[in-house]
Amino acid sequence: MAKSARDSGSARSAQGQPLFRQVMKFMLNRIERGEWKAHEKLPSIRLLAEETAVHRLTVFKAYRQLVEEGKLYVRDKAGYYVAPQGGLSARKEETAAGTAALYSLTNALSDIQRMQVEYQFSQALIDPGLLPNLFLSDYVKKVFDLYPKVMGTYSTVQGDPELRETLSQHFRTHHRLQLSADELLITSGAQQAINLISGMLLGPLDTVLVERPTYSVAMDIFRREGARLVPVEITPQGYDLAEVEALMRKHKPRFFYLNPTHHNPTGYTVPAEQRKLLVELAERYRCLLVEDDPFRDMYFGAEPPPPCFAYDTEGWVIYISSFSKYVAPGLRICAVACRHPFMERLITAKSLADNGTPLLNQKIFLHYYTSPRLQQHLVKLRIALQVHKEIAEEVLSAAGWTWTAPQGGLNLWVKLPEDIPVDVLFARCMAESIAFVPGEILDPRGEMKSWLRLSYSFASETVLREGMQRLTALAGSLGASR
Amino acid sequence: MAKSARDSGSARSAQGQPLFRQVMKFMLNRIERGEWKAHEKLPSIRLLAEETAVHRLTVFKAYRQLVEEGKLYVRDKAGYYVAPQGGLSARKEETAAGTAALYSLTNALSDIQRMQVEYQFSQALIDPGLLPNLFLSDYVKKVFDLYPKVMGTYSTVQGDPELRETLSQHFRTHHRLQLSADELLITSGAQQAINLISGMLLGPLDTVLVERPTYSVAMDIFRREGARLVPVEITPQGYDLAEVEALMRKHKPRFFYLNPTHHNPTGYTVPAEQRKLLVELAERYRCLLVEDDPFRDMYFGAEPPPPCFAYDTEGWVIYISSFSKYVAPGLRICAVACRHPFMERLITAKSLADNGTPLLNQKIFLHYYTSPRLQQHLVKLRIALQVHKEIAEEVLSAAGWTWTAPQGGLNLWVKLPEDIPVDVLFARCMAESIAFVPGEILDPRGEMKSWLRLSYSFASETVLREGMQRLTALAGSLGASR
Repeated sequence: MAKSARDSGSARSAQGQPLFRQVMKFMLNRIERGEWKAHEKLPSIRLLAEETAVHRLTVFKAYRQLVEEGKLYVRDKAGYYVAPQGGLSARKEETAAGTAALYSLTNALSDIQRMQVEYQFSQALIDPGLLPNLFLSDYVKKVFDLYPKVMGTYSTVQGDPELRETLSQHFRTHHRLQLSADELLITSGAQQAINLISGMLLGPLDTVLVERPTYSVAMDIFRREGARLVPVEITPQGYDLAEVEALMRKHKPRFFYLNPTHHNPTGYTVPAEQRKLLVELAERYRCLLVEDDPFRDMYFGAEPPPPCFAYDTEGWVIYISSFSKYVAPGLRICAVACRHPFMERLITAKSLADNGTPLLNQKIFLHYYTSPRLQQHLVKLRIALQVHKEIAEEVLSAAGWTWTAPQGGLNLWVKLPEDIPVDVLFARCMAESIAFVPGEILDPRGEMKSWLRLSYSFASETVLREGMQRLTALAGSLGASR
Repeated sequence: MAKSARDSGSARSAQGQPLFRQVMKFMLNRIERGEWKAHEKLPSIRLLAEETAVHRLTVFKAYRQLVEEGKLYVRDKAGYYVAPQGGLSARKEETAAGTAALYSLTNALSDIQRMQVEYQFSQALIDPGLLPNLFLSDYVKKVFDLYPKVMGTYSTVQGDPELRETLSQHFRTHHRLQLSADELLITSGAQQAINLISGMLLGPLDTVLVERPTYSVAMDIFRREGARLVPVEITPQGYDLAEVEALMRKHKPRFFYLNPTHHNPTGYTVPAEQRKLLVELAERYRCLLVEDDPFRDMYFGAEPPPPCFAYDTEGWVIYISSFSKYVAPGLRICAVACRHPFMERLITAKSLADNGTPLLNQKIFLHYYTSPRLQQHLVKLRIALQVHKEIAEEVLSAAGWTWTAPQGGLNLWVKLPEDIPVDVLFARCMAESIAFVPGEILDPRGEMKSWLRLSYSFASETVLREGMQRLTALAGSLGASR
């Protein structure tokens, strides 16, 4: 690099890029290539300055910047260390505040969803008004008559045997899954299932395949474990299996996290023949499939193809089946199906996480789930959701927006006209009490800036129509104003 | 080492210890001293054989043994790598079974407690017969009248505002804690609280202070994060604060996990003046105190001193307060109190873990907790627990066993006569359907082999007396038989 550069920390190279940024890139490459491993101590600033022939102030600036960006951390003044992939944020030892900031914990989606807004299109949840709340309380009373000591009793860690037996029968009959009650674990929602599986399988620098786009909270969980995310494009036709195979061969991922049925956020469904081939790839490349399947029963036309789990004979699929979205979200009941030896380890992970999902919730769920009323409810719900979807689509098409009409699920994955800046739209919407999810958050690459996810299931029909109209109007004004 | 050793993999040194064990120790020392860091690649077998002048087969045997013991792992045949503290178990890439076995997940206590036995003394739980189950169902019905949509509604991630407001008032009035509702997070049991805090604060090679003995599941959680455990002895007089200060200075621990009130397993209570000084140490050495306090309300004589949290003005204490053990274990409700910025990060951790504790459980808990009936129940419960304790003590003293009578809690921490091998006793007891917790499991050092934890709260009075008599008789026969 230019000798003149050695005189100042803010020197620029011939290419006009600040030198310290080049030093940063140089260092990031070494970390990327694994020459500098997680938690490894870095060479002193003096040494690196000599190696790169750059002024020490410039190198110092690069180190500081990388600490700010969570790529490095400072350990008790002993020097600079490489942060695990997924990153550490700057570690300051001086205050309680400082010691809080070790590991990067983020959940952008949850941050958005926590805001109270009038037009809630950011939550893939079902309008509580569409749920049979009053009927449910009857089942609760029934549960207390049947199990008077339910409030004083812990569940087993794996989950209530009666519930697991019932669910395994359900899976055998409805989804052609070969399952015993011993191959099911009850968790508190799909979220916990993803978290337990990650804790069981992921370590720093492990690779995970994720769909692009995908459920952002899953990415946040994998990054928390220090894993590297490698995207697999999902389209209305499913995956490019040649691409998937190449990625499995190249990266030896620990697992592929996928949501192939009424995919979140796109609504796409991966065809049956691809599922079969994908399971074969999983076996060949010893890459587990972690199949998240919360939207299966919420279809508008034909029933979706069976889960990947149905094609698996060698134990390479872990199947996350949560019904609580449409049965009773308040109960947070989810079932994870997997084979030996994952189940034994999942049970231990669950025992460390919370020692078992509350028995009360499992028993209430069980008795409602096995009632004829649930099936009636489900039929009505499918119709109601389709009506919601069509209201949203009607407004959006009037505004000239484009999307692929989903065959099920709770979301529309919408592409905006290029001239509308989604970040600006998002800010304006928040100001007007309208919430949606910017595509950027759901993209492992952090791109997809002209996409957004609109959930049509949570708002009532009136609020939905009104909010969508306000949203498209706002967007239109932004588009015009440029 | 002896030249002759080079001829065989099973060679022995002069000291009679197999050579490969000496090689193992040599390697473990390097890992212990941090010369070989977590996830760092080890020298080839050939190289180490030359360095140690030991036959390559012997070195190979040592590597394999360390893999078996989870000190090393094999990565895609590229070589041997150092496992983080807390260990990895052998990683085999050939089968689905193999890929399950990356991180060491253990929970010995849960393994014991999962066995169905007639005389259950291993669970620090309350006999469901002592809980007001029938009354509770009234409150449940009340909850459904008050919140008809509770089953269809998610809780906020931090927890139901109404419940947090009520609990913060309770803490202010009963425990002199300065707390706002914003400084409370609702978790699904204390177990989840410990897990979230560890995920927020711990990384590989971080140090945690733990009492010796302590709650083994907490140790399992810390080890899962790759942390190093440093024991602090707890006695009937509390801690040796000079020792605590020395350990804080030397190890710069991330936090001290403690249970200073009716301590599990010993039942000891740390005096008030020590709590005040401990908080000062925490501030001075920037070592958080994670105060687990599930037994506070279960006292037999005088009320225990206020929690450490009450003495903290700088935000160095995270307080875990679970009532569910005696209110309604089936609900799994726990409250964590801490200050900015830990709360913001805990909320994110909770959002990743399960997105919020079920609202139903929080509302039921709220309405029972605020009822006059709970206080009546608590008074009765204290008497019942004391009766249980005295039954156990009566039988044990007849057998000549020794312990320090606890002023509260659910356990007796008992020292057996030296001539009784606890491991043998444990095996015999299991065979006769009697479960207890061997002290070894609760000791961060894995020693305390002549101690055991007996929980007197779970079995009914009759079963308790009978089981304790069988236990002491069995132990007696073992002692005699030697």
